[in-house]
Amino acid sequence: MSMLSLLDYAGVAVFAATGALSASRKQLDIIGYLFFGAVTGIGGGTLRDLILGQAPVFWVRDPTYLVITTAAAIAVFLSANRFESRYRLLLWLDAAGLALFCVMGAEKGLAATGSPLLALVTGILTATFGGILRDLLAGEPSVLLRPEIYISAALTGSALFVLSLAFGAAPWLALLSGALVAFLVRGGALKFGWTLPTGRAKPGRDPDVVMPPRRRDDQQET
Amino acid sequence: MSMLSLLDYAGVAVFAATGALSASRKQLDIIGYLFFGAVTGIGGGTLRDLILGQAPVFWVRDPTYLVITTAAAIAVFLSANRFESRYRLLLWLDAAGLALFCVMGAEKGLAATGSPLLALVTGILTATFGGILRDLLAGEPSVLLRPEIYISAALTGSALFVLSLAFGAAPWLALLSGALVAFLVRGGALKFGWTLPTGRAKPGRDPDVVMPPRRRDDQQET
Amino acid sequence: MSMLSLLDYAGVAVFAATGALSASRKQLDIIGYLFFGAVTGIGGGTLRDLILGQAPVFWVRDPTYLVITTAAAIAVFLSANRFESRYRLLLWLDAAGLALFCVMGAEKGLAATGSPLLALVTGILTATFGGILRDLLAGEPSVLLRPEIYISAALTGSALFVLSLAFGAAPWLALLSGALVAFLVRGGALKFGWTLPTGRAKPGRDPDVVMPPRRRDDQQET
Repeated sequence: MSMLSLLDYAGVAVFAATGALSASRKQLDIIGYLFFGAVTGIGGGTLRDLILGQAPVFWVRDPTYLVITTAAAIAVFLSANRFESRYRLLLWLDAAGLALFCVMGAEKGLAATGSPLLALVTGILTATFGGILRDLLAGEPSVLLRPEIYISAALTGSALFVLSLAFGAAPWLALLSGALVAFLVRGGALKFGWTLPTGRAKPGRDPDVVMPPRRRDDQQET
Repeated sequence: MSMLSLLDYAGVAVFAATGALSASRKQLDIIGYLFFGAVTGIGGGTLRDLILGQAPVFWVRDPTYLVITTAAAIAVFLSANRFESRYRLLLWLDAAGLALFCVMGAEKGLAATGSPLLALVTGILTATFGGILRDLLAGEPSVLLRPEIYISAALTGSALFVLSLAFGAAPWLALLSGALVAFLVRGGALKFGWTLPTGRAKPGRDPDVVMPPRRRDDQQET
Repeated sequence: MSMLSLLDYAGVAVFAATGALSASRKQLDIIGYLFFGAVTGIGGGTLRDLILGQAPVFWVRDPTYLVITTAAAIAVFLSANRFESRYRLLLWLDAAGLALFCVMGAEKGLAATGSPLLALVTGILTATFGGILRDLLAGEPSVLLRPEIYISAALTGSALFVLSLAFGAAPWLALLSGALVAFLVRGGALKFGWTLPTGRAKPGRDPDVVMPPRRRDDQQET
């Protein structure tokens, strides 16, 4: 299925671009752009492959993926100073990557396990883990913790893909509709601040206040 | 061995609850609770399985685990606002999960490798990695870095399990005594602030003071 | 090839020492030193093995590695208070580990896949991932984000190793020259502040300023 590869390459490219944008925000050098591009572009699919027992992972079997992350990172390196807000662009490209990867991850999970539940899980994992790695490595606040809908968009896209297939839709239609709806949900969340109810939870207090660490006092800072 | 499954399910449930409590502290939506519950509940065992070469990982082979993390996360979503301190509850459930997972991890490591040393390592890894992931993803100070005994409790439980088996104890007795002692050690540390000697180390200075990064000066903040 | 094992053991030892130095900076107990030593010493190679599909991973097949990380961590525990600056020592040992692991990782990647491109990637991954884990778990600013040359040094060493082999050099010469040059590049960066151009990127603004999270206002801190 050639559209599958195309969507997968596109998802890797946009996620790699978000990683490179993070590298730009941190003023790394060109090799830092390549590194963050690769980690972000292939991180989610790598975890997916490891969990499903499909090793060596996909980009070892097909190094084209590394060429794509490299190209995307170089493109960002050359153009990043033209954008008014790299972080805003990062979030929108992340939304596109999330949409593409939630259906790709669900497709691979379903093919490997036959279980719709596991397809949802691999869809969400593939769609979110690259961005999680990017934010962790760049020391940025994780996009997971923003209040607008994020993981739910990946869940929606994965679920629509799985349901469409179950109701007999053609694979290409299931892929495209799942990705499109995931992008609309996440895009709407970015543009209009859509949220889901948070169960009236209050913000957590500082752990060191709730459970003060007891440390011996005979030590001074040096 | 059916008690093995029972202890494993229980460990997954309490760790998933700690992940959901973190989601509550961060005011995430219900899907965020499910995500943090799953990552925390199955993260440690996932790393253990990958390292031992047992892929696809356990929850792909038996999706019951995902049902358990989902149920635990929903229970926390519905009840979290009743607790006076979610962080305190998180630490105590984490202690229970640590105790259950250190013997489970040691058991699986021993079964897979036959090496008592590796059993200690897989015990500690399984017991701590879910919590490490939870704290990393939630942007919380890692429970690893608190001064009270933590990793040592997992080591104690794993070691008691391995030693009990070596001295001919029945597996159920080795499992229960290892888990019980690990919980008592960690619980005592939480309640009484038990620590081990820290070798008179002084706190580290800020890296940027010790080794100031040299950055070109011709750039302004934008 | 026995020199291969020797270099690998040496790399694991120096990286384990950097992990233990981080534990010292965080005033952890002796078990914390062992934990951080092991995670840092074997983290990079573990990821490399998983990605290449070589599970169980190397230290499960040869637990000598765990003995080495333990010994290195104990040595640091006993001596850390003698060093004027643990962080400076950490960076220099990290440079040595980076140099050893970039050629070791490239060698294993090349042996497993036959692809020079993948050899560069596994070289960089193996050389950097232990340090990434160390900094993440210790809550320290990642060495990846420092302005001086870092990832580029690993790339240089891996590339020199691969090229030397391609031009017919003996394996031991390719290993030693790659490691030596990587160490000189990273060491020069530490000593003289060498950097590569950063493409005129400006530092990123706070995400919460660029895209303010919208949260309902009816909640107070508790």
